[in-house]
Amino acid sequence: MRKELLENVRNSHPLIHNITNYVTVNDCANILLACGGSPIMADDVEEAEEITSICGGLNINIGTLNQRTIPAMRKAGIRANALGHPVVLDPVGAGASRLRTDTAMDLLEHVRFSVIRGNISEIRTLASGTGSTRGVDADIADAVMEETLSEAAAFAKEFSRKTGAVLAVTGAIDIVADEKTAFCIFNGHPMMSGITGTGCQLSAMTAAYVTANRECTLEAAAAAVCAMGICGEKAWQRMTEEDGNASYRNYIIDAVCRLTGRELEQKARYKIL
Amino acid sequence: MRKELLENVRNSHPLIHNITNYVTVNDCANILLACGGSPIMADDVEEAEEITSICGGLNINIGTLNQRTIPAMRKAGIRANALGHPVVLDPVGAGASRLRTDTAMDLLEHVRFSVIRGNISEIRTLASGTGSTRGVDADIADAVMEETLSEAAAFAKEFSRKTGAVLAVTGAIDIVADEKTAFCIFNGHPMMSGITGTGCQLSAMTAAYVTANRECTLEAAAAAVCAMGICGEKAWQRMTEEDGNASYRNYIIDAVCRLTGRELEQKARYKIL
Amino acid sequence: MRKELLENVRNSHPLIHNITNYVTVNDCANILLACGGSPIMADDVEEAEEITSICGGLNINIGTLNQRTIPAMRKAGIRANALGHPVVLDPVGAGASRLRTDTAMDLLEHVRFSVIRGNISEIRTLASGTGSTRGVDADIADAVMEETLSEAAAFAKEFSRKTGAVLAVTGAIDIVADEKTAFCIFNGHPMMSGITGTGCQLSAMTAAYVTANRECTLEAAAAAVCAMGICGEKAWQRMTEEDGNASYRNYIIDAVCRLTGRELEQKARYKIL
Repeated sequence: MRKELLENVRNSHPLIHNITNYVTVNDCANILLACGGSPIMADDVEEAEEITSICGGLNINIGTLNQRTIPAMRKAGIRANALGHPVVLDPVGAGASRLRTDTAMDLLEHVRFSVIRGNISEIRTLASGTGSTRGVDADIADAVMEETLSEAAAFAKEFSRKTGAVLAVTGAIDIVADEKTAFCIFNGHPMMSGITGTGCQLSAMTAAYVTANRECTLEAAAAAVCAMGICGEKAWQRMTEEDGNASYRNYIIDAVCRLTGRELEQKARYKIL
Repeated sequence: MRKELLENVRNSHPLIHNITNYVTVNDCANILLACGGSPIMADDVEEAEEITSICGGLNINIGTLNQRTIPAMRKAGIRANALGHPVVLDPVGAGASRLRTDTAMDLLEHVRFSVIRGNISEIRTLASGTGSTRGVDADIADAVMEETLSEAAAFAKEFSRKTGAVLAVTGAIDIVADEKTAFCIFNGHPMMSGITGTGCQLSAMTAAYVTANRECTLEAAAAAVCAMGICGEKAWQRMTEEDGNASYRNYIIDAVCRLTGRELEQKARYKIL
Repeated sequence: MRKELLENVRNSHPLIHNITNYVTVNDCANILLACGGSPIMADDVEEAEEITSICGGLNINIGTLNQRTIPAMRKAGIRANALGHPVVLDPVGAGASRLRTDTAMDLLEHVRFSVIRGNISEIRTLASGTGSTRGVDADIADAVMEETLSEAAAFAKEFSRKTGAVLAVTGAIDIVADEKTAFCIFNGHPMMSGITGTGCQLSAMTAAYVTANRECTLEAAAAAVCAMGICGEKAWQRMTEEDGNASYRNYIIDAVCRLTGRELEQKARYKIL
């Protein structure tokens, strides 16, 4: 993974507008600062378009969506499209309720996304327009593993072709694909699913990466996914016998804060399908 | 305290629907993961019932309640009752405003709770239908101490008889009671009141414990309270001279993450009245 | 800086009503507890006045403001004024959207503030009634530096004369001024801008300081700013090579928790203009 992808974030400090859930919003803000970006959170329909206009990129996360914030998501997305800003969608819990599925589908219809990042259950829901997700975690049955990798990569490429977005399907193995190329990424640690919001954080960071690397969205999204995975690995190495998921959360953000382009190049583990 | 009460949470990974305040919601999500459960937060009336349906238990916390979320609390509670799911109520700040008191009373009228967990001031407010709480902390005058223990236990039993819920009245000494039996729990550390949200976290964890131990709600709630107290003690032992309440918060969640059934059995300190 | 200013907070435990954004609200609650205060968060218009009434002070922060919370801010502010409670305004992102600028201007018109705390871009927006802020961070062009210090102090004094509020303009150098006197404060560390919410946290803590020191608002606000800066310095000294902004956030709150009046006296670095 080219170190410039990370360094461009640190050098350009992309300002990212986040319309996101209140569960993990603080972690999203801190990881954006950690990676070199700058966060602003604003979800009222009265200011959503204006805030998007002063930013470089937009991150829409539908966790804890509500009747008040859904119109803000749509308006901000349309404005960001008009301005040519990258837009990331995190369809948290799509499939878990009709409201989430419908909101995600409605956004897909009205907004062109640069990247869609979710777990395999959420992405399958978007692809089929229906689904049954176990809360905000991926169904075991759907998990991407070595044996199902090429099938999953084909699925991501196909859905990328339909949506025009780069697909980032994250799990034990992550797939980041446009219609032609899929990065299969092996970085990360199982403990990352033991804290809330690693997915949300990754979506926010992905928005910073693609905003700072406008000419290579696929590669930038893949770099963000590798960076998160590498930091999950580094954070794990710091864990003592008394540490649990609260410290691990802090260590991951700390690692993002310390990560260098050189480390990204050296530690990224992926293959291209 | 039987180690199975904890192990059942780790083995069954109960999915808990939380309608909770935005102050401590991240800690609630992380402690649910730490104890072995799985969190989903959703507070819009359009999806509250549906989200509850895919979960095993429901945790309603009225901190930062608002006109938008109150109907979601009620609908989710009624649906959870219809499905036979355990429901926990945390009446944060009941007595501090009419809106909070009225909302808590309304919920008590329309929803059958498995457990009600609050400080003594909040619980007294519910019992009397009125009250004056100093913010979200218990009044000193109300504090449960060794001398007032049997009186407080009798009060909790009586209110349990009226509501049909297990009462978890937490403070320096915690009381967990149904109409016949009261666990008086001596675990915990005074520093726990020096961080925000230990009560909210305990309510969330209690929902996981009672969901994973359907046949013994009283004992499961008592186990959750013991577990939280033991983790407050273990976290305190980790504190260095530079650590304050931010690190203490992390250490408690870390300790929940590491707690074993064996430790719960060995370190729980309680008597039964 | 007199040690009594800190000790009065620890001795009187001021209860502070916060209407604040959901990004940094947990940190605001924990820093209030760390400094010796007690937080309550409530933003529904139905309870805002009542909650303010049981508190000692009010902290209004317009980050993630929305149509539902804006009326609560105004009502709570007016009630606090009627009761003679100190009120702090944090105009987060004023200048970044019309909604934020207008809301801040409307609040200034209807509520008398004891302290207004913001970065220089936000305060300039309030002073001119218009502005262009880069998100929630100060514009580089506006930064207060040694060369522009006396000019900035004169600006703060003048705006204090107009509003009747103590102005706390924070940045590399902080200025805390009433119409006659400006404290120029040199404590702090550049890394403080690398975490989200140090400004929000400072506003919350300032509310506690001025509530506990009713007869000397200027000095109390200056003490809060010094305390935050000193804790930023102490937290920095704790940083290891693996620590990043997540740990730094915790270390700052920890340092506030441990700060003594004596340290405040010894480590405060300021001059009076």
